[in-house]
Amino acid sequence: MLVNGEAFENLRHLTKHIGGRLAGSPQMVKAENWGLITLKQSGADTAYLQQCMVPHWVRGGTDKASVVSVDGKMQKKILDVLALGNSLGTGKKGIKAEVVAVSSFDDLEKHKSELKGKIVFYNYPFNPTYIVPALAYRESGIYRANGASRAAKYGAIGVIVRSMSEGTNNHPHTGSLRYNDSFPKIPAVAVGLQDADFLWQICRQHSKVQVTFTTNGYFLPDTVGHNVIAELKGSDGSNDFITVGGHLDSWDINEGAHDDGTGIVQTIEELRTLKTLGYRPRKTIRFVLFANEENGARGGLMYAEQAKAKNENHLLAIESDEGGFTPRGFSFTISDEKLEKIKPWTKLLNAYGVYEFTKGGGGTDIAPLNKTINAPLAGLVPDNQRYFDLHHARNDVFEAVNKRELLLGAINMAALIYLVDKYGLQ
Amino acid sequence: MLVNGEAFENLRHLTKHIGGRLAGSPQMVKAENWGLITLKQSGADTAYLQQCMVPHWVRGGTDKASVVSVDGKMQKKILDVLALGNSLGTGKKGIKAEVVAVSSFDDLEKHKSELKGKIVFYNYPFNPTYIVPALAYRESGIYRANGASRAAKYGAIGVIVRSMSEGTNNHPHTGSLRYNDSFPKIPAVAVGLQDADFLWQICRQHSKVQVTFTTNGYFLPDTVGHNVIAELKGSDGSNDFITVGGHLDSWDINEGAHDDGTGIVQTIEELRTLKTLGYRPRKTIRFVLFANEENGARGGLMYAEQAKAKNENHLLAIESDEGGFTPRGFSFTISDEKLEKIKPWTKLLNAYGVYEFTKGGGGTDIAPLNKTINAPLAGLVPDNQRYFDLHHARNDVFEAVNKRELLLGAINMAALIYLVDKYGLQ
Repeated sequence: MLVNGEAFENLRHLTKHIGGRLAGSPQMVKAENWGLITLKQSGADTAYLQQCMVPHWVRGGTDKASVVSVDGKMQKKILDVLALGNSLGTGKKGIKAEVVAVSSFDDLEKHKSELKGKIVFYNYPFNPTYIVPALAYRESGIYRANGASRAAKYGAIGVIVRSMSEGTNNHPHTGSLRYNDSFPKIPAVAVGLQDADFLWQICRQHSKVQVTFTTNGYFLPDTVGHNVIAELKGSDGSNDFITVGGHLDSWDINEGAHDDGTGIVQTIEELRTLKTLGYRPRKTIRFVLFANEENGARGGLMYAEQAKAKNENHLLAIESDEGGFTPRGFSFTISDEKLEKIKPWTKLLNAYGVYEFTKGGGGTDIAPLNKTINAPLAGLVPDNQRYFDLHHARNDVFEAVNKRELLLGAINMAALIYLVDKYGLQ
Repeated sequence: MLVNGEAFENLRHLTKHIGGRLAGSPQMVKAENWGLITLKQSGADTAYLQQCMVPHWVRGGTDKASVVSVDGKMQKKILDVLALGNSLGTGKKGIKAEVVAVSSFDDLEKHKSELKGKIVFYNYPFNPTYIVPALAYRESGIYRANGASRAAKYGAIGVIVRSMSEGTNNHPHTGSLRYNDSFPKIPAVAVGLQDADFLWQICRQHSKVQVTFTTNGYFLPDTVGHNVIAELKGSDGSNDFITVGGHLDSWDINEGAHDDGTGIVQTIEELRTLKTLGYRPRKTIRFVLFANEENGARGGLMYAEQAKAKNENHLLAIESDEGGFTPRGFSFTISDEKLEKIKPWTKLLNAYGVYEFTKGGGGTDIAPLNKTINAPLAGLVPDNQRYFDLHHARNDVFEAVNKRELLLGAINMAALIYLVDKYGLQ
């Protein structure tokens, strides 16, 4: 695979020729067509589209923000921002208001009487002391997801969140919010780390900091999207499946290289490799390019719904959606007992860089499969020290992916598929 | 350290303000001064320079090459090349000759009667099937080191080597050659991978391919260089030491970021951290910024010579010189018995990403310490999938280093220093 792998060139096509491919966009359609053709050419016994309705959020223009006055004195400091996905725009005139800077939701509650008509700035830090940055992401992500509605509850008219990143640049990192229907749907942007530090500092030093921002986000009616699915038919004639996948959609402001172009081309690489080796699986293996992970997860829901309707039994669903970096392990959603039983497999994978099987993993797209039909899950765990430098930001581009790291991930996924097909998870 | 670490900013200074710092260059002197000041400021009990004579090779100009004719038909295809370090230049007019392309030394022997007056092109591949690219480097590096003299033995007048890399770009990768004094010292260049593939292909397809290249390398007389050394004095009053280091010199054509700026700033970070924590070591810890690893290794030789002269006992010497990537383990030059005894330490390091203690490691600068006084050695083993994309090439620059990966290496080195200081290697 390190010699003949096609994943890197496939990734080049997906990122450079198709690009950002948010649900509902023309690039989504292009990506689906490309995915279907590429899966067919990679040797699928069958490949098809599975329809699902997806949300159709549109950024609608360039997001802008600046500091306009400090303690009543006019000034102009441009802030680099991106509207959060699924957020509604400010209108063309934008909003202008005093900023209330808070460090956390607890801090927000302390200031709740002061928020009417204000812009809330959440400066919750991405904890650098975690050795695994994904833990810091989980902890801080709630400010992006829920910050707008929690501030709107107290009368705020807009929200700025510190990006979920520890990068040394100033890129803002977008990502989805979820409005709580009980409160006004106020606009929200993410700000880069340098600008966040700047804004925090002037808010500490001055009693009145006024900011303006303009965003243009809106929803069109839900539209038709698809999971793109290929199969290698199992030889034992059962209704048993192994699912492997990533998500085909990405944010609109980058190339979706690590998130999740790499998971997509690794999934295709598994098919190509098993086919090239002439491997005839016992169980049917499904290679799934999921729709709409980023701002709706509808693809994963549809896939689980269909699996349940067809009474499918899934031995394991594997997802790669944590970046195409050097693999370090897999994380499983299975019983402790089963996990202990398969831990010796790590010895077979050591040579390919995988040392750990841990608990709790999977992926957004396969999670519903666990909920509906209790399918065991596994997520590829790559070294993610670099991931949050570029996750959901403009610099998640093809050039940030290393060919060998990408392929080593695919190799370990192939090994896990083989082991599960051969020995099961019993 | 992930919060307060200064290694990343130190690296920025070393790479961006000082830059490439080959032995004998003005930048070498700047780097030594900076190193001494920075070690003092980081809390050394004492910091000093240890003099050693270093070779003074100068590239002397821009290296140029092109294909000039194929089967007698003139054409001009420019090749991106770099003269190998320590190679002597062609003279201003350059050399022009027919190319004999060979795949290996065995292949060279088959063609030995055809080499008189020719340019030998070694197209030995960097084996992509090794999971650890450093193994491919060791295997192919002999063509760079010995290729010129082995070809000169049969009358060749110049050598082109395929770069020791698997990168997807076309950067040539320099590095040292060693002339065998028995044969003429012919000029030699490295060529990037895309150009190597091109050249190999036309040499296969045509019977006569003529190439020209011009290099300008020469030696000035040996000059004065220094190991830059700091100490934290041990409390037990013994003549026992723990050495930790990297090499301060780098190639001239890049910023020497991963090779070995990262090892340097990690070494300084160990001192700063132990001092900041108020740690009082039992054994004296030496922090050494070695001179002249790249094209002479004289710093390491001098350090070992002095250690022997002073009857020092070195419990362990640790080097970081395989890039500032996420750490995966340490590799030791110690007895099997001792290695087995310390393997349980890996469990303490798992949380920081280190999983393996293997055998055989160390580093060029500390190797002499093993030879002269039998000091045990350890080398930090980072994930090196990306290393040979940039090793000795123009793209080994500050921007290629990730702050967290760099600091995680330093954290594991600090842990190993602590464990050895506290428990020894008995």
